[in-house]
Amino acid sequence: MPINGERLKERFEAMAAIGATPGGGVDRQALTDADRRARDLLRSWMEEAGLAVRVDDVGTMYGRREGRSGDALPVALGSHLDSVHLGGRFDGAVGVLAALEVAETLRDQGIVGHHPLEVINFTNEEGSRFPPSMLASGVLAGAFAADYAYSRTDVEGISFGAALEAIGYRGDREARLQGAKAFLELHVEQGPVLERHGDVIGVVEGIQGITWMRVTVKGEANHAGTTPMDMRRDAMMAAARMITAARSALSEEGPDGRLTVGAVEEVTPGIINAIPAVVRFTVDLRHPDAAALDGVAGAFQKKAEAIAAEEGVEVAVDRFFTSPPVVFDAALVGQVEATARELGLSTRRLVSGAGHDAGYMSQLVPSAMIFVPSRGGRSHCEEEWTEWAHVLDGTRVLYHMARRLIEA
Amino acid sequence: MPINGERLKERFEAMAAIGATPGGGVDRQALTDADRRARDLLRSWMEEAGLAVRVDDVGTMYGRREGRSGDALPVALGSHLDSVHLGGRFDGAVGVLAALEVAETLRDQGIVGHHPLEVINFTNEEGSRFPPSMLASGVLAGAFAADYAYSRTDVEGISFGAALEAIGYRGDREARLQGAKAFLELHVEQGPVLERHGDVIGVVEGIQGITWMRVTVKGEANHAGTTPMDMRRDAMMAAARMITAARSALSEEGPDGRLTVGAVEEVTPGIINAIPAVVRFTVDLRHPDAAALDGVAGAFQKKAEAIAAEEGVEVAVDRFFTSPPVVFDAALVGQVEATARELGLSTRRLVSGAGHDAGYMSQLVPSAMIFVPSRGGRSHCEEEWTEWAHVLDGTRVLYHMARRLIEA
Repeated sequence: MPINGERLKERFEAMAAIGATPGGGVDRQALTDADRRARDLLRSWMEEAGLAVRVDDVGTMYGRREGRSGDALPVALGSHLDSVHLGGRFDGAVGVLAALEVAETLRDQGIVGHHPLEVINFTNEEGSRFPPSMLASGVLAGAFAADYAYSRTDVEGISFGAALEAIGYRGDREARLQGAKAFLELHVEQGPVLERHGDVIGVVEGIQGITWMRVTVKGEANHAGTTPMDMRRDAMMAAARMITAARSALSEEGPDGRLTVGAVEEVTPGIINAIPAVVRFTVDLRHPDAAALDGVAGAFQKKAEAIAAEEGVEVAVDRFFTSPPVVFDAALVGQVEATARELGLSTRRLVSGAGHDAGYMSQLVPSAMIFVPSRGGRSHCEEEWTEWAHVLDGTRVLYHMARRLIEA
Repeated sequence: MPINGERLKERFEAMAAIGATPGGGVDRQALTDADRRARDLLRSWMEEAGLAVRVDDVGTMYGRREGRSGDALPVALGSHLDSVHLGGRFDGAVGVLAALEVAETLRDQGIVGHHPLEVINFTNEEGSRFPPSMLASGVLAGAFAADYAYSRTDVEGISFGAALEAIGYRGDREARLQGAKAFLELHVEQGPVLERHGDVIGVVEGIQGITWMRVTVKGEANHAGTTPMDMRRDAMMAAARMITAARSALSEEGPDGRLTVGAVEEVTPGIINAIPAVVRFTVDLRHPDAAALDGVAGAFQKKAEAIAAEEGVEVAVDRFFTSPPVVFDAALVGQVEATARELGLSTRRLVSGAGHDAGYMSQLVPSAMIFVPSRGGRSHCEEEWTEWAHVLDGTRVLYHMARRLIEA
């Protein structure tokens, strides 16, 4: 195979050593000193690979290999080097280092395409230090202004802008990607689907839309012993019914959605021998289809209101955040699938349940993603793991995709 | 009517002024300075009423009016003057002051019975400062040793024993009640049943047994977006089903029980976009019948285990506290009912959902309780309220019961 697996492995290990945690993961949150060292190392490798390095106004790094045509749009490949606190070594780094390996393999092979190639390391994809996630690709897509990004602060009150200056990675607005023929991101699945089915390459059709809701149930606090069951307005019993009703509202829309009640934010008074007056919980609802997302949210609200009426309580559903579904470029998605199959790799079409820079990139340029399996579906933890053979398989798909795309 | 409603009202208002809160309640936790002042006032009234006052080793106060027979067992009436933090003015005080009024009315009428009469103010019924509740009546019944009571501490580390000495109410073990022909406690219902049915006198058949359980559900934390619904081990969904199953386990045992999930003690990791790995909640289960209490607890455990199996999670049900049901003396209960009806008062038989000193007393001597309505069923709050006419009605029932009981 054309790519240099040994070189990729060495670089991967060297990168995983930056911010390495005792449990085998990495802690390399955006714009920390660990992130700076990761960036410095990437820059040196890019330069060794003959790429022209530039940094844009929100710190996103680009390494460019020219093509035969000076004004042809570049083919862009990339991901991110930042991690969550106590994160894994694969999430993000695989996509950046595979993109670099693609560029270097093209040089090793003496291949110059019609189109230039750009390797990208997006700033602050995780958003764990500076919410929201995917801040830099969001700026690139025009979803956020650069000033908005600069003003984000971490828990210590340090601003994104100040942290960016401090590590020396505030570049120029002119350095931003000015369009692309295509954007491709290789990433670990972060879910269990490929592993469970024994498939190697995830052909990502899009990213699920997300709606976050906060559900507040208000009843009446009363003595647990002296209040007969039929005289209660029990916010907890109503909330429990609503939680199961939420899942059944989703299941009526088929198997593509996800619904999670991850937090119980309030139980008042919250003591063992008092009927709760207030229970507030969160709902994280995801679906690849925008109409289905709204349909489930609406069906849940109706069910919650019906339960509230039966239980004699009040309910307020606050749908406070929605990120619409992303649908990747159908032609590119089809090419990913065909390329993987030509390489003899088993593929499975799926929809990403997590957000990625490719989501914002798809608003700018034709985009697609390639997934490789995550052991046990684990991610954002030190136990995150992907078999090295699968990293190489994903990199080969990325290489062959890039090689085709850089031709006219 | 024989009792002096004006005198009782004046004393009730004077007592409510001790530890009075801006919201119309009282804050008179056990062995505080407010409790000392309440005790001093009660002592002075007892002495004015010609009662012989004594204090036992855990501070319980007795005021004795002798009968014709020197060695006949006394008829004991009483309740408690301590309150919870920000409690109501009726809970406890009604029963003590009504008992005092009964003694004084007997004197006013020149009635001396065969049996002596004792008016009792139990220490630390609420247990809000020094858990557990009903500490002094528990000592009297032999459920706790006096040394256990002395060693209880408040949140500041002050012991019950030290606080008792500090307010000057540590008396003698010999002062404890040495048996009684009967014990009667007048109390506010603290629930909504009498008010909802328009009845005035609650004929209390007993006190519900209580079981407290802690239910821990363990699944697997995973990403809310990337984990398909059929690959989840979602502790929250399982817990929500268990909470509703708990209520249905109770309803299969008829209308007499109570079941409350008052607290969600843990949700881990507890963030909006992660499937919970651990959810822990409490169950407060009450039933007047011991077999039914065990039956519901057992049925709940089976249902919880079946749900756990279906949801792919583990569940542990820790039944960490049980207080068995109290059944009051059937003859006394019947006499309360007959007496109230003779007075033209509407009665309703019910089982107390809250604990009372009469519960421990029933282990020693034939005991019963008389309830009067609580507005809106509210208690342990400043809004606690009972119509004054109902306090007088309850006192009249107590008086006529006492008058009969002091005769041979």
